[in-house]
Amino acid sequence: MVDMNVVALAGGVGGAKLVDGLAQVMNPENLTVIVNTGDDFEHLGLYICPDLDTVCYTLAGIANPATGWGRADETWNVLDSLSALGGPTWFRLGDRDLGLHLERTRRLHAGDTLSQITIDFCASWGISVKILPMSDDVVPTWVYTDEGELPFQEYFVHRQCNPRVKGFRFNGVEHANPAPGVIESLHQADLVVICPSNPWVSVDPILSIPGLRQMVAERRTLAVSPIVSGKALKGPAAKMYSELGIDPSVISVSQHYRGLLDGFVMDTLDVGQAGFVEGSGILPYVTDTVMKNRQDRKRLAYQVLAFGKKMEKSPK
Amino acid sequence: MVDMNVVALAGGVGGAKLVDGLAQVMNPENLTVIVNTGDDFEHLGLYICPDLDTVCYTLAGIANPATGWGRADETWNVLDSLSALGGPTWFRLGDRDLGLHLERTRRLHAGDTLSQITIDFCASWGISVKILPMSDDVVPTWVYTDEGELPFQEYFVHRQCNPRVKGFRFNGVEHANPAPGVIESLHQADLVVICPSNPWVSVDPILSIPGLRQMVAERRTLAVSPIVSGKALKGPAAKMYSELGIDPSVISVSQHYRGLLDGFVMDTLDVGQAGFVEGSGILPYVTDTVMKNRQDRKRLAYQVLAFGKKMEKSPK
Repeated sequence: MVDMNVVALAGGVGGAKLVDGLAQVMNPENLTVIVNTGDDFEHLGLYICPDLDTVCYTLAGIANPATGWGRADETWNVLDSLSALGGPTWFRLGDRDLGLHLERTRRLHAGDTLSQITIDFCASWGISVKILPMSDDVVPTWVYTDEGELPFQEYFVHRQCNPRVKGFRFNGVEHANPAPGVIESLHQADLVVICPSNPWVSVDPILSIPGLRQMVAERRTLAVSPIVSGKALKGPAAKMYSELGIDPSVISVSQHYRGLLDGFVMDTLDVGQAGFVEGSGILPYVTDTVMKNRQDRKRLAYQVLAFGKKMEKSPK
Repeated sequence: MVDMNVVALAGGVGGAKLVDGLAQVMNPENLTVIVNTGDDFEHLGLYICPDLDTVCYTLAGIANPATGWGRADETWNVLDSLSALGGPTWFRLGDRDLGLHLERTRRLHAGDTLSQITIDFCASWGISVKILPMSDDVVPTWVYTDEGELPFQEYFVHRQCNPRVKGFRFNGVEHANPAPGVIESLHQADLVVICPSNPWVSVDPILSIPGLRQMVAERRTLAVSPIVSGKALKGPAAKMYSELGIDPSVISVSQHYRGLLDGFVMDTLDVGQAGFVEGSGILPYVTDTVMKNRQDRKRLAYQVLAFGKKMEKSPK
């Protein structure tokens, strides 16, 4: 599989796990990861990129193994001190994590691009896989809810996904440019892997960058379902489907990506729906998709690549 | 002495020590500290007030006892993380210290004033002495050197005071307003104490705020010498005097404040120069001025207040 160029589209925790698996079984020069930046936001004057950081921390081997996001061996003295002065603590920023945010914010203010900064940070961490933000332009996700329109982190972290979702908006995405390397990597891709990330707020922002949906549609593409047995492994994907009046199922996910997929990787628990997926013209692959440890990630990544390789490119 | 209103003019470490002594022997409602903000600067997007923080940390009992600045029980994980990414580490910011800088910067960006933020922080720390920045306006100190003009922290921390000093400039001070409470506290002051801080870069910025020098001149005022036996206890004061062609001595300090002082507190080691001070119309008081522990601070503060009380207001 070393001769296959793969592009993975990823959000945070689930995406980072599969990407870590892919990095374990591929030559790094054959793997490019395009990461959602719709979750990015400014907080305490710092520019924070939750998905990008989760992917990078995971590949650097310094992610918090308990949470899947943030840093291992983290301390919380900055936030303790800020809290004692009455500052906002709803977004949990660890000390080591803050070092990254401070340096990235400093460089952005100095005129560097997010993609260049990410390249440099990856070099510092010894990451040889190419990790690209979807865009160097700021494309913040807003969530339409029954309590009005909320910035994504306000909905996701501060309000803990409690407001009922009515829809999403990726502000300014129609004018956003793909980050340098994104178009080139998709051009050279033998396989596009849509990671088990939230379709609404992790993958859709990437696909909404002008030109990217069409490019993905033209490649051999598979998705790994983030929904298993009607539930999201992490985060609000299932809740979002329900609130939008859609059954949270692997069928719904495969339909979400209609026009893009040649293949679809779904969990053994959902084997009963494989026939429906196949009937819609998408080749299903059923396996255990829950990644509990690094070995699971590697095994699933291997299966995904093997499936992607033999999968036919269908007319879409 | 509880009925005497005292205003202390203070820079960082030395000033904070004497202020801590004064706070130990006075009713807090009778003591106001006006702190130099000429050292303030922006670093990593954060607004940092070294002297103000040193005074506050000291009075809050959370200062680092080894250095005199920064926080006790400090950790350095933010800076370690930032350093690993190639960020600037010449200004040592501890984790707990950073919590303060983040929250102050957040509030300044939200439109709060430095003086109001300082009042709120002091309340959080349980400090009942009134601590005022000299101004809510930004008045950055620049140092003229043989290597050109340098921002103060660039000279002081990054270049470790190595360039030879030719002079100083407090940028925009002619248009700066005293912070709320500064004028009122000086109006009500029975005694002004110029703390053993650097005359050039800690006290002169305060005295350069329009109106303040005249008000200090009109009050009963004493200074405690930061120079002992030709040396500064901390910092570059003696080096600055020498490079400006002035002998670093208690006489030079007393002359530095000419027109302002009724009394002058100098160290026992410099007793030989007391006659000269007295001859220049300033009442000298000779004692041990080196504060090695909290008891020293209290003893010196008590002596300073007793001296200030009996000292005559001279025509200046």
